[in-house]
Amino acid sequence: MAAPIDFYFDFSSPYGYLGAEKIEALAAKYGRAVDWHPVLLGVIFKETGGAPLTTLPIKGDYSKRDFQRSARFLGVPYRAPSKFPIASQAPARIVLWLKHRDPALAARVAKALYRAYFVDDVDISDPDRAAAIAAKEGADAEAARAAVDDPAVKDELKADVAQALARGVFGSPYVIVDGEPFWGVDRFEQLERWLATGGF
Amino acid sequence: MAAPIDFYFDFSSPYGYLGAEKIEALAAKYGRAVDWHPVLLGVIFKETGGAPLTTLPIKGDYSKRDFQRSARFLGVPYRAPSKFPIASQAPARIVLWLKHRDPALAARVAKALYRAYFVDDVDISDPDRAAAIAAKEGADAEAARAAVDDPAVKDELKADVAQALARGVFGSPYVIVDGEPFWGVDRFEQLERWLATGGF
Repeated sequence: MAAPIDFYFDFSSPYGYLGAEKIEALAAKYGRAVDWHPVLLGVIFKETGGAPLTTLPIKGDYSKRDFQRSARFLGVPYRAPSKFPIASQAPARIVLWLKHRDPALAARVAKALYRAYFVDDVDISDPDRAAAIAAKEGADAEAARAAVDDPAVKDELKADVAQALARGVFGSPYVIVDGEPFWGVDRFEQLERWLATGGF
Repeated sequence: MAAPIDFYFDFSSPYGYLGAEKIEALAAKYGRAVDWHPVLLGVIFKETGGAPLTTLPIKGDYSKRDFQRSARFLGVPYRAPSKFPIASQAPARIVLWLKHRDPALAARVAKALYRAYFVDDVDISDPDRAAAIAAKEGADAEAARAAVDDPAVKDELKADVAQALARGVFGSPYVIVDGEPFWGVDRFEQLERWLATGGF
């Protein structure tokens, strides 16, 4: 089987959420697995000078409209969260901690966390709520909650974000397949052609 | 016939060039004309805090790769210009001046200028070279060259850029159809569905 697709995402990213809803079917179509990499755009933006889209003059208003329209275009349910953006450490640490134990469960939990935030308006930056969502998918509730404050998990997430930056990750979603980078859910068509043809 | 599609573009924008190669066929498919609006991203970025993509840390390198790949994906010839970005006043003024005289010729000249820059590596920020390209398409050579320094044309371009900003234009290409804005050639699929369905 070919190498997995690296899928980098931030839990506060609407386009990351839309990508998370699409990446597995796309990968499976071409015999690929997905390696889920939660990252922290807040940390990455310090290096790149980036900023949350919605905070930018003029572009911010367009972005809010485009989140909604892109969700409708892709057929994905979406409701603008009442608190946005959020710190994404808690859900990121839970998913990272789970990945070592049960990668398939980690992927399900990642999608459940995203849906809780972008469909049900749950503030997943809250460690208790994030852990409860993981538990609902089958994770150990207490251990998931403890992972948020575990120094080893914190350090691992920091190292992962640094590694992502070193690979050129500057936004969400960001996909790398066989060394080729694709930024944005609006590059999934190019990604698909790349998977289908081996590069163009 | 339905209202024309407003197509905003900057002559230094690679994605604007790719959009310019696609917009007319897309518009014609749905019985629409295209209204070509040259703008100056340098002026717009002063209001929005934007910056040329290629100057941004990390994102800049990705962008250069994405220009090339997006061109291949769309089947459009593209060669990275040796001088980039460029000031786009000269070609913008020539196209604006022509629009009042012969809109169809103005559109042909806009596409010829873009190709000169992004395929043949001609520095179209040079007024003489920009005027020569317009002349090759059928414009009056001397009058085209004079338009670049014409205070009335300069003022009109300033007013057009201010009006574009007031309509929310912050990037290139930027398309408005029946009040709905679409930023980027990567939104042309959404644009097409919008044209086909009247909105979604």
